[in-house]
Amino acid sequence: MKTRFYNARILSMAGDCSVISGEVVVEDEKIVYAGPSREEDGEAADRSVDCKGNLLMPGFKNAHTHSAMTFLRSHADDLPLQQWLTQQVFPYEAKLTPEDIYDLTRLAVLEYVSGGITSIMEMYLTPESVAAACRDTGMRCVQVGGVNNFSQSTALLERWFHELNGADPLTSFRLGFHAEYTCTPELIGEIAALAQKYHAPVYTHCSETQSETQECIGRYGMTPTAYLASRGIFAYGGAGYHMVYTTADDRRIMKENGIAAVTCPGSNTKLASGIAPLTEYVAEGIPTAIGTDGPASNNCLDMFREMFLATGLQKLRLSDASAFPAAEVLRMAVSTGAQVMGLEDCTCLAAGKLADIIMIDLHQPNMQPLHAIPENIVYSGSKSDILMTMIHGKILFDRLDGREHYSVGEDPEEIYARCRRICERIFA
Amino acid sequence: MKTRFYNARILSMAGDCSVISGEVVVEDEKIVYAGPSREEDGEAADRSVDCKGNLLMPGFKNAHTHSAMTFLRSHADDLPLQQWLTQQVFPYEAKLTPEDIYDLTRLAVLEYVSGGITSIMEMYLTPESVAAACRDTGMRCVQVGGVNNFSQSTALLERWFHELNGADPLTSFRLGFHAEYTCTPELIGEIAALAQKYHAPVYTHCSETQSETQECIGRYGMTPTAYLASRGIFAYGGAGYHMVYTTADDRRIMKENGIAAVTCPGSNTKLASGIAPLTEYVAEGIPTAIGTDGPASNNCLDMFREMFLATGLQKLRLSDASAFPAAEVLRMAVSTGAQVMGLEDCTCLAAGKLADIIMIDLHQPNMQPLHAIPENIVYSGSKSDILMTMIHGKILFDRLDGREHYSVGEDPEEIYARCRRICERIFA
Repeated sequence: MKTRFYNARILSMAGDCSVISGEVVVEDEKIVYAGPSREEDGEAADRSVDCKGNLLMPGFKNAHTHSAMTFLRSHADDLPLQQWLTQQVFPYEAKLTPEDIYDLTRLAVLEYVSGGITSIMEMYLTPESVAAACRDTGMRCVQVGGVNNFSQSTALLERWFHELNGADPLTSFRLGFHAEYTCTPELIGEIAALAQKYHAPVYTHCSETQSETQECIGRYGMTPTAYLASRGIFAYGGAGYHMVYTTADDRRIMKENGIAAVTCPGSNTKLASGIAPLTEYVAEGIPTAIGTDGPASNNCLDMFREMFLATGLQKLRLSDASAFPAAEVLRMAVSTGAQVMGLEDCTCLAAGKLADIIMIDLHQPNMQPLHAIPENIVYSGSKSDILMTMIHGKILFDRLDGREHYSVGEDPEEIYARCRRICERIFA
Repeated sequence: MKTRFYNARILSMAGDCSVISGEVVVEDEKIVYAGPSREEDGEAADRSVDCKGNLLMPGFKNAHTHSAMTFLRSHADDLPLQQWLTQQVFPYEAKLTPEDIYDLTRLAVLEYVSGGITSIMEMYLTPESVAAACRDTGMRCVQVGGVNNFSQSTALLERWFHELNGADPLTSFRLGFHAEYTCTPELIGEIAALAQKYHAPVYTHCSETQSETQECIGRYGMTPTAYLASRGIFAYGGAGYHMVYTTADDRRIMKENGIAAVTCPGSNTKLASGIAPLTEYVAEGIPTAIGTDGPASNNCLDMFREMFLATGLQKLRLSDASAFPAAEVLRMAVSTGAQVMGLEDCTCLAAGKLADIIMIDLHQPNMQPLHAIPENIVYSGSKSDILMTMIHGKILFDRLDGREHYSVGEDPEEIYARCRRICERIFA
């Protein structure tokens, strides 16, 4: 199957954020051409899509989420963080079955694809049913373990590391644990041993809140980043999710150990956690990606909101309107996101890369005029501008004929109905 | 013409933010019924719309904007504020004709109606052509004067006050001036005299930035709010746009003089101006509304973004996830917004009120599940959820049949084309 997208503008993200006119040709799951128009492709393609001057670009990479927490969206907002977690999150999560998580993840996938998100880095309770949900909908998903003192284990982590890698081209699994503050030193040591055994990077929540960071200093005399690095967790790199409270010394450790930062500005805002020092990360050469975090804490899974916040909060923090320009944000949301997730084949639109492509409607009023398309995307873009989301060569969402179509193996209303029944049972 | 919207959820905003099931009946420009379903209306209506369980609510009130600045969207982002204003805004604004402003305002109206905004409070250079643009598209618009040392005058202000009030049910005009820092004390005195003459409220930019506030203190030994109040500007109330840097004493003056605050969190974020003390305003009983500001400084005209920022930035500022709950934000964006704009007939869905109604798609994935609809709107809502925007009883935008339709007197592509030509001329 060969599809030619012609009459397009292309933001390939292969180098800078420049936009050219041309076409993209997709064969099966791969891009075979992205560049200026070539006459010959019109004849050879099985399907031709007139892009009508709209923009093709790589899909957004959501580098941190807990998809199945859709069931908690707007269940209990505007509460202090600890009260929310202990009274409104943990007791209800305890009632979830793997089948629930399968359905609730599918609900999140509808939101991802309608918002132009083509891959997610996921941490949740039952990796097997999450992998099944992503495989069955067509979502690209890099899972990480969420081991802690109360759920999962290093034995399970190692089993998943074997079983959930290589089983499906859309899904993979990486070593990970919940956080320093939910793991004993012994458990941290076991996970570090696995990293050593497999020469594998490790992913975890880190320095999300000030109190978490200070409590770690109280326990070990070190920040979470310094402590985890000292235990060998990051011997082969990895990433910290949130990374709101890091010191200059933490950033030196991150740089030396190849630890990326994944920022979640929407969640950090709604939960009043703080503003991460993204400007410093980028200036110091630390790979930095963006995640939505889960829908219980954000509450939406919308990379347009995250992109505006990523730059806007830096401008506010530094009292500098020129801080963190749009091109930097786009790189985080696309190419660096892919790199942090280990998806080197998804960084840009170029021959040989995987066909994770979105089309952005430049005929929407919020995209007019077209002085600077990358700035339009970051500063005035909205998920309402998404015309098409293709993952691994398959169109999962589009409104190319004016109406919304989902191709995720099931009608959205059926997914909504099952999730409603899950909520009725859990909150009964 | 009588239209019955049945099978709806209704967030009337008449009292609290509770949602009921029922129907809304519109006759010409007015709501004649909003409440539980009544059988008899099905027969009498000229048109019946099955809302399919989706939500009807009053449209969003955008209480501060400069619509025609669409021509500057993404023209020059990520610059320091003063450099941006003096090098990238003022020189190009000087080239605008009233006809340009007519077309550029129409471009903004497309964005307003596609995002569920049913009225705007507008300040720009040529009020006559702005009024014409709103009248011709069907947009409800309360204009305010933008008098300053360099453009407009108190004579023009008084003329517009007569000519642009009562001429059309959709448009009105209020006394206003640009800001303390662009007006001589003599000009401020003349405007105050007009307020006194007509017993009229006055609207102006006020305490948007720290430097503006400090310079005013340097000039007059008073904050902008205290200085303007001392000159009699607010003898009959009014509002300050932005109000980022106010003291406890300023807030006492606001409360005593009936001065509302209009916050523009998107603009204040992008321009690094700061975070307004909304929590204090609401706690102290100061009417507080939300505006997008103009598309040159935001860059989009999206009240969903503003609502999330309004609460989110308070949570960050106060390090308190429970600060500024969703219901408070909705009140600002709807009922209080209407009151601040003098649109008492547009505060809620109730018999006798004007039919400024939007329909929100609850079948979008970001709106599922339906634990708490007001929270869904504020925390996970998006302009992609807007199914219909009705102003003064006329549907200006909808996708009730799945496709987008604009009814603003002209095809969007024609408006885009004219705005493109304007940009080509101005930036040539």
